[in-house]
Amino acid sequence: MNVLIVFTHPEPQSLAAPLRDVAIGQLQAEGHEVRVSDLYAMHWKSAVDRADFPLLASEQRLKVAAASGQGFAAGALTEDVKAEQDKLDWADAVILQFPLWWYSMPAILKGWIDRVYAYGFAYGVGEQSDRHWGDRFGEGRFVGKRAMLIVTTGGWEEHYSPRGINGPIDDLLFPINHGILYYPGFDVLPPFVAYRVDRLDARGFAALGNDLKERMRTLGTTEPIAYRRQNGGDYDIPSLKLRPELAARGAPGFRLHLRTGGSADSANQSIAPEKRPHSLLVEPSQGG
Amino acid sequence: MNVLIVFTHPEPQSLAAPLRDVAIGQLQAEGHEVRVSDLYAMHWKSAVDRADFPLLASEQRLKVAAASGQGFAAGALTEDVKAEQDKLDWADAVILQFPLWWYSMPAILKGWIDRVYAYGFAYGVGEQSDRHWGDRFGEGRFVGKRAMLIVTTGGWEEHYSPRGINGPIDDLLFPINHGILYYPGFDVLPPFVAYRVDRLDARGFAALGNDLKERMRTLGTTEPIAYRRQNGGDYDIPSLKLRPELAARGAPGFRLHLRTGGSADSANQSIAPEKRPHSLLVEPSQGG
Repeated sequence: MNVLIVFTHPEPQSLAAPLRDVAIGQLQAEGHEVRVSDLYAMHWKSAVDRADFPLLASEQRLKVAAASGQGFAAGALTEDVKAEQDKLDWADAVILQFPLWWYSMPAILKGWIDRVYAYGFAYGVGEQSDRHWGDRFGEGRFVGKRAMLIVTTGGWEEHYSPRGINGPIDDLLFPINHGILYYPGFDVLPPFVAYRVDRLDARGFAALGNDLKERMRTLGTTEPIAYRRQNGGDYDIPSLKLRPELAARGAPGFRLHLRTGGSADSANQSIAPEKRPHSLLVEPSQGG
Repeated sequence: MNVLIVFTHPEPQSLAAPLRDVAIGQLQAEGHEVRVSDLYAMHWKSAVDRADFPLLASEQRLKVAAASGQGFAAGALTEDVKAEQDKLDWADAVILQFPLWWYSMPAILKGWIDRVYAYGFAYGVGEQSDRHWGDRFGEGRFVGKRAMLIVTTGGWEEHYSPRGINGPIDDLLFPINHGILYYPGFDVLPPFVAYRVDRLDARGFAALGNDLKERMRTLGTTEPIAYRRQNGGDYDIPSLKLRPELAARGAPGFRLHLRTGGSADSANQSIAPEKRPHSLLVEPSQGG
């Protein structure tokens, strides 16, 4: 496989870098091709602004979706954005590695999403009708590709557990896993989450590295998170509300959008129940 | 009151700007003092990096928490960051206004949080013991101040409803409301969320503006979201897990952290049950 790692850390000597290198080493040992976008090393521009849209006349009002759609269709987005889009097209699997800052990704990585995910590329694609609300959430440009997060945090695993004060890690990452990765079609693997990384000694790092190697070894085979496809029958269109009878069977909150509560989607039904990764989703700290 | 609006939009002619001006006008009419940090106009630097920490020697490894703590304690953070910290200290209420991009805030606003929220300022404060796990989640520098979000989105309200495919808006905003605003002590008001803003005509905008005026008029009196205080007895220390008997009474997911399922916290108990804003939390689209 071709694997793209989008790496986010301001310090080349931080623990994040050897962790990334463990991943790269294992992926290459498996025969995969690996490319890395090191956002800090690239001095990635974070903020979407007029400069991103060379076709936009100076007197024209900036509407981000329209301008990015126009730029993408004309092949006229900026070179840095086009290069990242090409990498996404090249990749069979995409890994976003970042430290969890304020319960989300660092600004520079959010800026990679905001700028690279152009209209017509990552959203705004597919038929819009009373049976199909665009190619999103399980359809889209990245169908057939895999994606996962590698997240490092100084916090304790218990603080991110189902009753932990921060909120369950899977819920905190839902806006990314579901809203950023599943949206344009990726199969999203359970995240790899490393806790208390500031306190790791050599033995702790070795153990963490071994866990990560195993995740890299199984990158092509790990069962994705069982999100529901938007256009598979589980959601009413155009309200995009989960059908009430499916909601009644499921857990509330973000977990509604997992197929564990039953699904009307025949494509989903083809996954045997015993193969669905329930346990990965019930225990939010699986990745760590 | 002194009110700080942190305004995030790349286009001065977008609908976000007149919406901000409606808020400013109403706040001033109420006699409040208003200051605005317009992040795009300020060319706010988004990415945390070495340049943020003038005291850090070039051969020293950058550890963000340590470096920001050292810089803050010495009054040696960069001038742009110090200016924003001064505004936060000046403010009695803080409003973050932004368009929802990929289910979260734009990179430039995340970069404002990442950089302004220094160690010793917004985190890493307070006694650390077996009964008090630092001043966070209901304690901290901003205790007694109020904060709220003004969020604009192109999406439909139904898509963000309890069964909507995007996930409930209150859950999507939990990492911000709870993790960024409640963490350093703000009383967090229910968000004001405007949906389908790209389709608004003049009448729609007028109605929206009226709703926003009402929220500004009641900025000082609106009941905050009933989050549980970290050190009030509801959480075990140091696991910071909600006590099991409280969890059993509450809803799962992020809603566990609302006091609606009962509380061991005497400070919380003093809020009469009938005054708790249940309905604001049960219906996630309240803000819009």
